[in-house]
Amino acid sequence: MSNAASLSRLSLNQYTTRRWSVAQAIDGCARAGIPAIGLWRDLVAQTSLENSAKLARDAGVQVSSLCRGGMFPAATAEERRRHIEDNRRAIDEAAALNTNVLVLVCGGIPERDIVGARQMVADGIAEIIPYAAERGIRLGIEPLHPMFAADRSVITTLAEANELVEWLQSPQVGIIIDVYHVWWDPAVEKEIKRAHGHILGFHVNDWLVPPPDVLLGRGMMGDGVIELRRLRTAVETAGYDDFIEVEIFNQHIWDMPGDAVLELIKQRYLEYV
Amino acid sequence: MSNAASLSRLSLNQYTTRRWSVAQAIDGCARAGIPAIGLWRDLVAQTSLENSAKLARDAGVQVSSLCRGGMFPAATAEERRRHIEDNRRAIDEAAALNTNVLVLVCGGIPERDIVGARQMVADGIAEIIPYAAERGIRLGIEPLHPMFAADRSVITTLAEANELVEWLQSPQVGIIIDVYHVWWDPAVEKEIKRAHGHILGFHVNDWLVPPPDVLLGRGMMGDGVIELRRLRTAVETAGYDDFIEVEIFNQHIWDMPGDAVLELIKQRYLEYV
Repeated sequence: MSNAASLSRLSLNQYTTRRWSVAQAIDGCARAGIPAIGLWRDLVAQTSLENSAKLARDAGVQVSSLCRGGMFPAATAEERRRHIEDNRRAIDEAAALNTNVLVLVCGGIPERDIVGARQMVADGIAEIIPYAAERGIRLGIEPLHPMFAADRSVITTLAEANELVEWLQSPQVGIIIDVYHVWWDPAVEKEIKRAHGHILGFHVNDWLVPPPDVLLGRGMMGDGVIELRRLRTAVETAGYDDFIEVEIFNQHIWDMPGDAVLELIKQRYLEYV
Repeated sequence: MSNAASLSRLSLNQYTTRRWSVAQAIDGCARAGIPAIGLWRDLVAQTSLENSAKLARDAGVQVSSLCRGGMFPAATAEERRRHIEDNRRAIDEAAALNTNVLVLVCGGIPERDIVGARQMVADGIAEIIPYAAERGIRLGIEPLHPMFAADRSVITTLAEANELVEWLQSPQVGIIIDVYHVWWDPAVEKEIKRAHGHILGFHVNDWLVPPPDVLLGRGMMGDGVIELRRLRTAVETAGYDDFIEVEIFNQHIWDMPGDAVLELIKQRYLEYV
């Protein structure tokens, strides 16, 4: 396999180069020969939706996904309704950016009731499915590491995400597999297999030992303990052949020059993923 | 229920008052009317095993458990053998301290192979069972939060711990349920029920939002989002009626005067647990 061919599924999640604008990140990908980018709504808003879409199109860089919808649970019905409206806007933005995947970070616990919060997630996704279907957007439920259960996602395992997909029974809904969140799970391979046909994204990075920070502790592929190739093989065996996004929240990497980060990503991707 | 009666199952895990020696912690419990204490080997060693046992006996404070054995995985057979020897010493120490429970923190990943590490844990526990049985010590497998999978315990869920117990098929082996490690798990109640008859300990504290630190981020009961009463009810329904240990690793609490910590524990225990 030539170098170029083996980078054909690589995508830069733009939070990996957090200091770059959308324009800088898209230019960086084009320069580095990285064919796709995962965008974030807050950074897209800074550049404007229209400009972001045009920049990607003109550079020939595909938008592999948009982060993020979700955050369904809330203490009041009024707040939950506002979150649903925000998800509809996110779906519109995904459509405008020519991606067909909106990543869902489902939300935490509004009060001391994780079971109730999980029901709010299921209800919230059910409510936005028709709107997503009309616009051709698929909703990727991303289980987050259990350390984020309280404040970011009560959906913590692939098993839960798969159950939600099976319960919702819509071709619009699938899952996003980020190795950082699921690598530890003894059921990880079983649940990846179960997700056959509804895997909408695969994110890579690494788990550093010891983790330097709860939120910003992700490492570059190869710097930690995750068996990336084992998980990639499982995901491919389950039929996923779309983009592999590199998503790393790490202050040290954010402080590096963006082009150097992209070179390192390519090297590590070829070596470890 | 009188105040004294309702504290009858309370135990202080001594790492909650990390700066106190064994003598100070036992005296503190006696003063506060806390009937039991969970001891740690490193602090016991500072006081000596014999003195620690005598201090507890003389004060009428029961030793609810000893922390910790485990740490089975290692890169070489020689290292694994040394860890087994250390576990035998821990069993002897538990017996000398008149507790019948040794808490196992099973160990992390020596190389990039979590499946192999899990097998080393199973093999390690199997190897020390006869020694534990001869000395009347039960081995409590404590699943740790998945954020500790790499460096502290590849056993991350109650399901895994229960499977290990069922696979080992020894009355000597059971599980320790610490709410901090398992509260997020959608299967928590199902797995507590499954553990009927082999629950060897129940530890309480709270999950703060956002967690201030990976290792020292535990909160006092009532300060976080864990539904303590729901979990206590599940544990009692599964037949556990022994001590409830308060185990909090938190720098702020370590900096408080020990007696004040014990008063706060009693108050929060009565209100939230």
